[in-house]
Amino acid sequence: MARRRVKGIAFDMYGTLVDVGAVAETCNEIAPDPIAFNAHWRAKQLEYTFLLSLMGRYQDFWRVSEQALEFTTRQFGLDVSPEQRSRLMEAWLHPRPYPEVATALSRLKERYALAVLSNGSPKMLRTGLERTRLLEHFRWVISVDAIRLYKPSPRVYQLAVTKMKLGKEEILFVSSNSFDVVGAKSFGFKVCWINRTGAPLDPLGPKPDLVVRTIDELSTEPE
Amino acid sequence: MARRRVKGIAFDMYGTLVDVGAVAETCNEIAPDPIAFNAHWRAKQLEYTFLLSLMGRYQDFWRVSEQALEFTTRQFGLDVSPEQRSRLMEAWLHPRPYPEVATALSRLKERYALAVLSNGSPKMLRTGLERTRLLEHFRWVISVDAIRLYKPSPRVYQLAVTKMKLGKEEILFVSSNSFDVVGAKSFGFKVCWINRTGAPLDPLGPKPDLVVRTIDELSTEPE
Repeated sequence: MARRRVKGIAFDMYGTLVDVGAVAETCNEIAPDPIAFNAHWRAKQLEYTFLLSLMGRYQDFWRVSEQALEFTTRQFGLDVSPEQRSRLMEAWLHPRPYPEVATALSRLKERYALAVLSNGSPKMLRTGLERTRLLEHFRWVISVDAIRLYKPSPRVYQLAVTKMKLGKEEILFVSSNSFDVVGAKSFGFKVCWINRTGAPLDPLGPKPDLVVRTIDELSTEPE
Repeated sequence: MARRRVKGIAFDMYGTLVDVGAVAETCNEIAPDPIAFNAHWRAKQLEYTFLLSLMGRYQDFWRVSEQALEFTTRQFGLDVSPEQRSRLMEAWLHPRPYPEVATALSRLKERYALAVLSNGSPKMLRTGLERTRLLEHFRWVISVDAIRLYKPSPRVYQLAVTKMKLGKEEILFVSSNSFDVVGAKSFGFKVCWINRTGAPLDPLGPKPDLVVRTIDELSTEPE
């Protein structure tokens, strides 16, 4: 990929920089199959962001996550106390960075202006980035909350263009979420897909410019 | 529910009038777990309708179904020949009405003007309704294709208002799909949820006016 024109990199947060699966450990307490429970919770959470955006009824990502949790516990027929519910939600404020992320970001920020562009609410992003000590690497932390619409609406990606004061062709967008890769590429960004699991790509649009397994590969790749 | 003001009923198609699960039989040929395969295919198909609507990149429901099939076969690591692929897609043109539907519609059409309002492409709807002999019950067959946006966009439900020439408070909308129930209720329709499986409702908005197990219960309920 010709990176000569790239001046800034915008990263997705959950699943890309930090491990959402870490929440599964908290699910151990309540669900016989915590991995399945967590996967359903996460899928429902994303589905609700799509639905609320389409209905024009935005609620922030914290509220969406609570509602998705409520649905998933009912779906699994689980009995969850208010305290357990709080602990499950709290897990979103204690995300865990993927092992390579801190080092890779240190390297990348020497050459590029870095941003986070996430569905997360401002509070979730701020808290998560502070606790993981990733905050210092980013010049911008951008939440969709500013426009009350979720990815993959093109207005979300436009928000990064506006905040970063760069042209869309000067921004590399990095995400591990296939729908986000498709949305960002459809918008016009250069896109890198962090495919940690070897998943297939959703065949909904143009392919990403670069596919790597870890952010490390992105930061050490020759130009 | 006070039905005195209801003059027309708009039905969702897939999962509401006709059984989408019938496609699973065709999946027997290719997948070790056809029910799981079919459920994933269906979930992906809906996800793609949400994503394409949010991206402003409409493709019709036939194409969306093909793309969801392509992704799901890769996800399951299955080897599918072009002939098998065609047969799987053809199953969408041979849906199977739920047992009570034909009788219930005969009864309802004596008192209300009936419509179908579906994500399905015009060809899919026409073919499916002709083959199941349900077509004769409907005064309108309305596809989202006219506005190139999928449910639960309010513009989809507005389409029924426009075509049926009724106020939104005069239309009862009937669907078995939770997201469709939420979308229609958020738009302002009276809504009946056909909850055939006892599933929980997505807690994203106001609740439906009526919840029944079959369309039969709707057609025989006292006013």
